Amino acid sequence: MTDHPLAPLLAERLESVGRIFEAALVSDVPVVNSLCRHVERYRGKMLRPTLVIVSGLAARGTGGGAQLEAPPERHDTLAAVVEMIHMATLVHDDVLDEADLRRGGATINSLRGNETAVMLGDYLISSAFRLCSTLGDPGLNLALGETTNALCAGEILQLSHRGDMALDERTYFDIVRGKTAVLVGSSCRLGALLSGAPERVCASLGAFGEELGMAFQIQDDVLDLVGDQQVVGKTLGIDLRKGKLTLPMVMHLAQCDAVMRTRTLELIRHVDAVGVRDLMERSGAIERARQRAMSMVSSAKARLDALPDSVARGLLHLMADAVVDRSS
Amino acid sequence: MTDHPLAPLLAERLESVGRIFEAALVSDVPVVNSLCRHVERYRGKMLRPTLVIVSGLAARGTGGGAQLEAPPERHDTLAAVVEMIHMATLVHDDVLDEADLRRGGATINSLRGNETAVMLGDYLISSAFRLCSTLGDPGLNLALGETTNALCAGEILQLSHRGDMALDERTYFDIVRGKTAVLVGSSCRLGALLSGAPERVCASLGAFGEELGMAFQIQDDVLDLVGDQQVVGKTLGIDLRKGKLTLPMVMHLAQCDAVMRTRTLELIRHVDAVGVRDLMERSGAIERARQRAMSMVSSAKARLDALPDSVARGLLHLMADAVVDRSS
Repeated sequence: MTDHPLAPLLAERLESVGRIFEAALVSDVPVVNSLCRHVERYRGKMLRPTLVIVSGLAARGTGGGAQLEAPPERHDTLAAVVEMIHMATLVHDDVLDEADLRRGGATINSLRGNETAVMLGDYLISSAFRLCSTLGDPGLNLALGETTNALCAGEILQLSHRGDMALDERTYFDIVRGKTAVLVGSSCRLGALLSGAPERVCASLGAFGEELGMAFQIQDDVLDLVGDQQVVGKTLGIDLRKGKLTLPMVMHLAQCDAVMRTRTLELIRHVDAVGVRDLMERSGAIERARQRAMSMVSSAKARLDALPDSVARGLLHLMADAVVDRSS
Repeated sequence: MTDHPLAPLLAERLESVGRIFEAALVSDVPVVNSLCRHVERYRGKMLRPTLVIVSGLAARGTGGGAQLEAPPERHDTLAAVVEMIHMATLVHDDVLDEADLRRGGATINSLRGNETAVMLGDYLISSAFRLCSTLGDPGLNLALGETTNALCAGEILQLSHRGDMALDERTYFDIVRGKTAVLVGSSCRLGALLSGAPERVCASLGAFGEELGMAFQIQDDVLDLVGDQQVVGKTLGIDLRKGKLTLPMVMHLAQCDAVMRTRTLELIRHVDAVGVRDLMERSGAIERARQRAMSMVSSAKARLDALPDSVARGLLHLMADAVVDRSS
């Protein structure tokens, strides 16, 4: 998407987001600063900040003459806030997963221990709320608090279903909505809200983001199962050991007969990742999950019909397509 | 203090705080609710909520005719917010300390694992910010964010000095200010702010609370070293193993000569808690730390001179004295 007409503007805005992000984490305790500089390297695609900014642009003018448009700095600040929340979840997820590597660098927990990683994650959450408060809008703080409540509840729900081979689709979707989709949805919705868009437009963009987030997570599940056998074996092996079920697995177990179920559970017990993958492939569960992600992307794009045609709306369409088109 | 004239009012208000606290944690995910009900049992002396309410009462009328007094429900909500932040730190501290027991009940980490404890702590932080946002005052959210930033930075500073036998007094106080005193100070300051008190009064109550919090932590350090030899051995033993220095130890090591220093470090290395305690007692370090806590309480009480005489101010005096008079 580097040749998109909005690309130069976006690059400039994301740089501004990065500057706000870094400035908001400055502490008078030097060790906090060095830990934050390390975490800043985790920043990847900046999906959530991009959605705040592009949603804000796409929602412009939808409020009619009464619409008060916020200066771009406010969107950039909000974009830094959602990225900071996302970063906090990465740091705490690494503690949960006992992960050693994140984007090719050592995780905080592996470098400084779980204790420091827990506290650094807390510092990121706290800083996100502090930064959000500088926008001076209690409604935004409330929306952020509701978003992070749903996020934590989703993570707790997932933990409580670890190793639950009877996990149903509905609960799987509840988990993914909480731990992934709600923050993506809020990025879009609050981006529109800051542009002064009417409730109808904010809600449409929120629904767009939430479905996009769900599709993103499902596609992640699917990508972990296709491609190089060794890589698949490792990723799926970790999931199986942790008792973490993905959508293809949930769909496979829900649909297969008693004999196949017993066979699958046996392979899971023996952490035979390649064997489990082959069964899911043959039962069509992987393909069905992929289809589900694609239909969610279509549904997400349809939400954008509530917005006037614009270059920004076109970019949201492209971003949605990219979720299912990617191979990593 | 159960015979204090404010006791019946306070009991009523703290019940209201408890109701707000519980209602704010209700989730549509059942497992989150059962975890929160467990954590609610950790509630102890309710020091911070009490300080919000009593500071609010003591600050009444200090703003002159222009003062707009908040209805008591707003103080009760803020009191629930600070208690929720405190509770989050307890849950995450138990993960840090690998603690199994908290107020006679099993800790979340020992019952459900570190992962759930990390996420539940996050849920408490998030809920505290969400609840604070319902007060509709961005200044309060900002102050809360600054408080929790200082709190996390204090914890991270402490972790970075684990096992640092050269820890100086100044750094010790920086740690205690961050991890304990700032939240106690904010409880007092924001209680006054909600009563519409002028900045001068809010600042005095904030300084009162901060010094009270410092004294409280030092007194905790001291109480862990006096009394029953077996109990002392256990508590100090844990601190020594974790490389956690208390004020008596910092004072002892800073003051003793090279021979005594070598001897002390040797006993520390062998986790000889009773031996270490005896050395600190003989060098007078325990008594000096106790004196420091007492002088901080005096200094805290002097801050209250900025307030008009009232029953509530008298109660703050009593609460300050109780910090150093207690034996557990």
